[in-house]
Amino acid sequence: MEKRHNNRPISLRQFQAAGGFWKEKMELVRKEVIPYQWEILNDRVEGASPSFCMRNFKVAGKLMCEKREKGADYEEPAYTFRGFEALPEDMDHLEDRFYGFVFQDSDFSKWVEAVAYSLVSHPDPQLEQTADEAIEIVCAAQLENGYLDTYYIINGMDKSFSNLKDHHELYCLGHLTEGAVAYYEATGKDKLLKAAMRFADYIDSCFGAEEGKCKGYPGHEIAEMALVRLYEVTGEERYLNLAKFFIDERGKRPYYFDCEEEVKQTDEERYQYYQSHRPVREQEEAVGHAVRAVYLYSGMADVARLTDDEQLKTACRRLWNSIVREKMYITGAIGATHIGESFSFPFDLPNDTAYAETCASIGLVFFARRMLEMEPDAVYADVMERALYNSVLSGMALDGKSFFYVNPLEALPEACHKDERKFHVKPIRQKWFGCACCPPNLARIISSVPAYAYSENEDTLFVHLHISGTITKQVGDQTAVFEVESGMPWNGNVSIVYKGEQPVRMKLAVRIPGWCEHWKADGLENYACTEEKGYYVITGEWKTGSRILFAFDMETRFYQADDRVREDYGKLAVMRGPVVYCAEEADNGNNLHLYEILPMHPVLESEVMVNGEKYPLLSVSARKKVTTKPDQQLYVKYRKPEYETAQLNMIPYFAWANRGENEMAVWFNKAEEN
Amino acid sequence: MEKRHNNRPISLRQFQAAGGFWKEKMELVRKEVIPYQWEILNDRVEGASPSFCMRNFKVAGKLMCEKREKGADYEEPAYTFRGFEALPEDMDHLEDRFYGFVFQDSDFSKWVEAVAYSLVSHPDPQLEQTADEAIEIVCAAQLENGYLDTYYIINGMDKSFSNLKDHHELYCLGHLTEGAVAYYEATGKDKLLKAAMRFADYIDSCFGAEEGKCKGYPGHEIAEMALVRLYEVTGEERYLNLAKFFIDERGKRPYYFDCEEEVKQTDEERYQYYQSHRPVREQEEAVGHAVRAVYLYSGMADVARLTDDEQLKTACRRLWNSIVREKMYITGAIGATHIGESFSFPFDLPNDTAYAETCASIGLVFFARRMLEMEPDAVYADVMERALYNSVLSGMALDGKSFFYVNPLEALPEACHKDERKFHVKPIRQKWFGCACCPPNLARIISSVPAYAYSENEDTLFVHLHISGTITKQVGDQTAVFEVESGMPWNGNVSIVYKGEQPVRMKLAVRIPGWCEHWKADGLENYACTEEKGYYVITGEWKTGSRILFAFDMETRFYQADDRVREDYGKLAVMRGPVVYCAEEADNGNNLHLYEILPMHPVLESEVMVNGEKYPLLSVSARKKVTTKPDQQLYVKYRKPEYETAQLNMIPYFAWANRGENEMAVWFNKAEEN
Repeated sequence: MEKRHNNRPISLRQFQAAGGFWKEKMELVRKEVIPYQWEILNDRVEGASPSFCMRNFKVAGKLMCEKREKGADYEEPAYTFRGFEALPEDMDHLEDRFYGFVFQDSDFSKWVEAVAYSLVSHPDPQLEQTADEAIEIVCAAQLENGYLDTYYIINGMDKSFSNLKDHHELYCLGHLTEGAVAYYEATGKDKLLKAAMRFADYIDSCFGAEEGKCKGYPGHEIAEMALVRLYEVTGEERYLNLAKFFIDERGKRPYYFDCEEEVKQTDEERYQYYQSHRPVREQEEAVGHAVRAVYLYSGMADVARLTDDEQLKTACRRLWNSIVREKMYITGAIGATHIGESFSFPFDLPNDTAYAETCASIGLVFFARRMLEMEPDAVYADVMERALYNSVLSGMALDGKSFFYVNPLEALPEACHKDERKFHVKPIRQKWFGCACCPPNLARIISSVPAYAYSENEDTLFVHLHISGTITKQVGDQTAVFEVESGMPWNGNVSIVYKGEQPVRMKLAVRIPGWCEHWKADGLENYACTEEKGYYVITGEWKTGSRILFAFDMETRFYQADDRVREDYGKLAVMRGPVVYCAEEADNGNNLHLYEILPMHPVLESEVMVNGEKYPLLSVSARKKVTTKPDQQLYVKYRKPEYETAQLNMIPYFAWANRGENEMAVWFNKAEEN
Repeated sequence: MEKRHNNRPISLRQFQAAGGFWKEKMELVRKEVIPYQWEILNDRVEGASPSFCMRNFKVAGKLMCEKREKGADYEEPAYTFRGFEALPEDMDHLEDRFYGFVFQDSDFSKWVEAVAYSLVSHPDPQLEQTADEAIEIVCAAQLENGYLDTYYIINGMDKSFSNLKDHHELYCLGHLTEGAVAYYEATGKDKLLKAAMRFADYIDSCFGAEEGKCKGYPGHEIAEMALVRLYEVTGEERYLNLAKFFIDERGKRPYYFDCEEEVKQTDEERYQYYQSHRPVREQEEAVGHAVRAVYLYSGMADVARLTDDEQLKTACRRLWNSIVREKMYITGAIGATHIGESFSFPFDLPNDTAYAETCASIGLVFFARRMLEMEPDAVYADVMERALYNSVLSGMALDGKSFFYVNPLEALPEACHKDERKFHVKPIRQKWFGCACCPPNLARIISSVPAYAYSENEDTLFVHLHISGTITKQVGDQTAVFEVESGMPWNGNVSIVYKGEQPVRMKLAVRIPGWCEHWKADGLENYACTEEKGYYVITGEWKTGSRILFAFDMETRFYQADDRVREDYGKLAVMRGPVVYCAEEADNGNNLHLYEILPMHPVLESEVMVNGEKYPLLSVSARKKVTTKPDQQLYVKYRKPEYETAQLNMIPYFAWANRGENEMAVWFNKAEEN
């Protein structure tokens, strides 16, 4: 029942990791995050606020039992609203009620999705059994008609679909579907997939363009891309059509959310947060809640590709450009303001008050991958790589045990503690969150990273990210096998060896990273090579043992921001390969702002231990202002400053805040050089 | 009944303005602000949200009438809370209820205070009659027992003094007293003074250290300094003692505000906003709501001086230093965050998100004057001058018709409109406010500025601010008269001519401005001169026609901030004399951040028309980054920047935003010079 389109991500089954940077991260997720998350889902972590997630499914399941037993005598609960997060009055005496956030079901779905990816790379019968049992519990909660959101099942179905704007039922459908498809693809087991299909079918029977059907759409997007995924794995066009309906309906006047709330027709501003202020094809600027935005754009790109909708493709490109040309931090972070967890206006990218949510960068990676599926162009992969190595990985501690929601580019612990404008910025990662979106999102993206690194069409294997492992690909009825050994992100040597038993004629399209100015490739004597949209396309017959060697120059580079980014004006950031570097107090002392980079001077490379592992340490030539004994006056007449020669020691940005609270900055003043 | 202490501000009666900078501002207040404010108080301004202030007094007066008529049959209203600001349901059918903010009575008090000052400089029988009539209305609202706050009189006295933390009764007493004293001093009429005394006496009967009396203190301070003023004009020690009681009681454990609200003992943080987190003598850092803070410190300085309380004096000095060494903008603005309209942590002084409330700077001037009374030291006068010429005056448009609450040091209109973190920052002044604290506060300080400029003790006249006018002073039974002609703030020539008919032996203590590095004085041949704490003290016999000429050098100066002020690091601000300059888009185009000041290069002086008046224009040598056609990428590899020679045209900061919305900045990057 599978139907493949052009240039699709490889299936995780086609990839076998063989050590290297990402393998380690995947292992961390497998060993630390997934088991911990399961404990969280079951409220078994001392000190963590309970999730109630599995508990809610059990309570709903129990109600379903009762309903079946009692038949017509069963009395449906009548809905009462108990808050966006319903907490028990007495933790020691929980009732058979719904607890937690309205979207708490999705915690399970994200977990099972990560489990699925992990099982492909690392079969684990015990974990699979745990997942199977969890799936039983979840499916037991489903209503006869297919509905499956415990919030309303327990609280009262009379109000289901009555608050699409804020109550996340369609969001829960989306995550459930993503988890179900992944689990089916990983294990071949379709129990959860069928449950997701039944839920989707039920929603399809309620929503749609046909007369009498609801004209609503998700308040928090994700169902769009999830339904496309369901379509792609089942081939059932109704799921694609439903995704398209949600996308087409969004932002039409009168606003559905106005009608739902029975408020007067409101203005655009009210719904920017939800990206429902205008029909999506008329949206020109990325606005509102950043996670919702990139989830929507991902769904739009999916639908545009599958329906070959040029207008929708144009809208996707425009929104993409709005983000990456005007609203993205150098780390790939998005969402410049914590107010509404939103995009700010163009070029407003403050480093110290950024929201820069981990999930938003993950969503940007989703969007990038889908743009790549729509049209292979390395500009999308460049951003995908930027986000993955920087703002996404920054979301997790090096030991996989604590997490950031917010990934600022500058942090001063005193400000985080004392300045309410920065209370959202934490100087160290937190254990887990009541609203647990970022950690499980990290788990699912990291364990599926090979599917972002490689994609394929009939005769081409695309290498977007150069990550180590063995990739197999069917070309007609032949099986091509490539072994990639990559030094990324620490060095630019990438060897690609053909390991297939039979020779295969096909193309290999290897991305030339946008950050790389000089590179060479060896072993191409027998191939025709062209450069196409940032990919080096190697065409020819691959024979066992054929070996290509890429050497991407990876010198340290200094970056400046567009002059319109006021917060970065006159400043420099440091990158080496795809990795953004930052300086921490631990390596430099405090008052980091007194350092000024000398960009024409040499950079020394060495190593530093962080969390028991070696990481590159860049010692950037700098000068540091000599501060004399402080004046008693805040403002004194200008005196020509004195500087001392200094080294600014920088570590990879994603590794920051692993040595306790301390100052950190990415952007530094540039000293003038002649 | 008057009792004078050492080094007191001169009475406004001793001063006659004779043109010059401040005379103009005083005239603006007299002609524009006071009449407009009277219309506002009476809800007669089309389009402005009604104040309800005079209306509330009338309604209360009507109730008092009824009460007298009905006697024992009168039914007291039972209190119901209708919000911190109670608005009518139907504007066209107002009832006999209280409307507006809980502290709305104080609008009248501030107005009558400004009227009083104005009447001294510019007698105006019609205005005086209007004030007399208003006073009749106000006094008619007073209860038999002296209580006078219409909020509770109308809403129900059963809850009076039950919410000292937020309901501003003692704040209303404070303003009423300030207004009453000023009106008495201006006109000799004591009706309002007596009303204030009766209210104060009633409060004195309710509050105090004695058993059975309430141990509360004001949530919003001002009563402390007002009661001292009442003491000084009446000589009644009980008012001083009550002020001292409020100050001594503040911050004691258990917290009075906890008891009042019947909440559990809370931690210090909860009450920093109110400066009631610790006993005042133990407070080391200026914290919380900035206006409240400086009002409290003013009262503390008053009580410390009058009771010669060394511990309290030390606390005042410490809090003063906390402000001026760690928490004050170069404009004299205070309150770095809009959250709680509060001080932020030391050296956290963001320019674009500042709260920098006009009233807070006015309060800082109050505090400075009282520190000067406590101990003449020019450091206090320096700050007083800095605040008056910059952040205070910035609060009012040049035409006196619109006002700023918030006085940022950097403004980008797009951010003010689109970035919710800066919604408190307005790019142009507003007509009037529902919560009208800043405009009337401006009216009262500007019309009494001579009393900040000059103070005296038995044999000394202090010249703190060099403002033009004629000052008379009694020395024993002789009358000394000095005529001051000053070019401040535009030039530093100050002539002081003795105009008294008889010669008088006395001291003249003329402040050498902290910003002045070079100065000279002529005409001192017959005097003994010493320099004491920033004052040039000239002792001798003054004869008719004796003339002293000061020439204070007033070249343009570049300032840098303490290195710990991160937001200003590597930047320069420009001052000339006491005036801070800023650059506006109107004189420089947009993207002001691309300018970099060359501090070793010359500054040209010319003039520019703003609001029909000539103002100095400083053309500072600068360079401006040449921006090429923008890249399509936000981040590009560092390229050595190209600059073009430029002039940064700067106008006095207080004159900004008088030519429509535009960019403005005070701090500019410094270009490196060899």
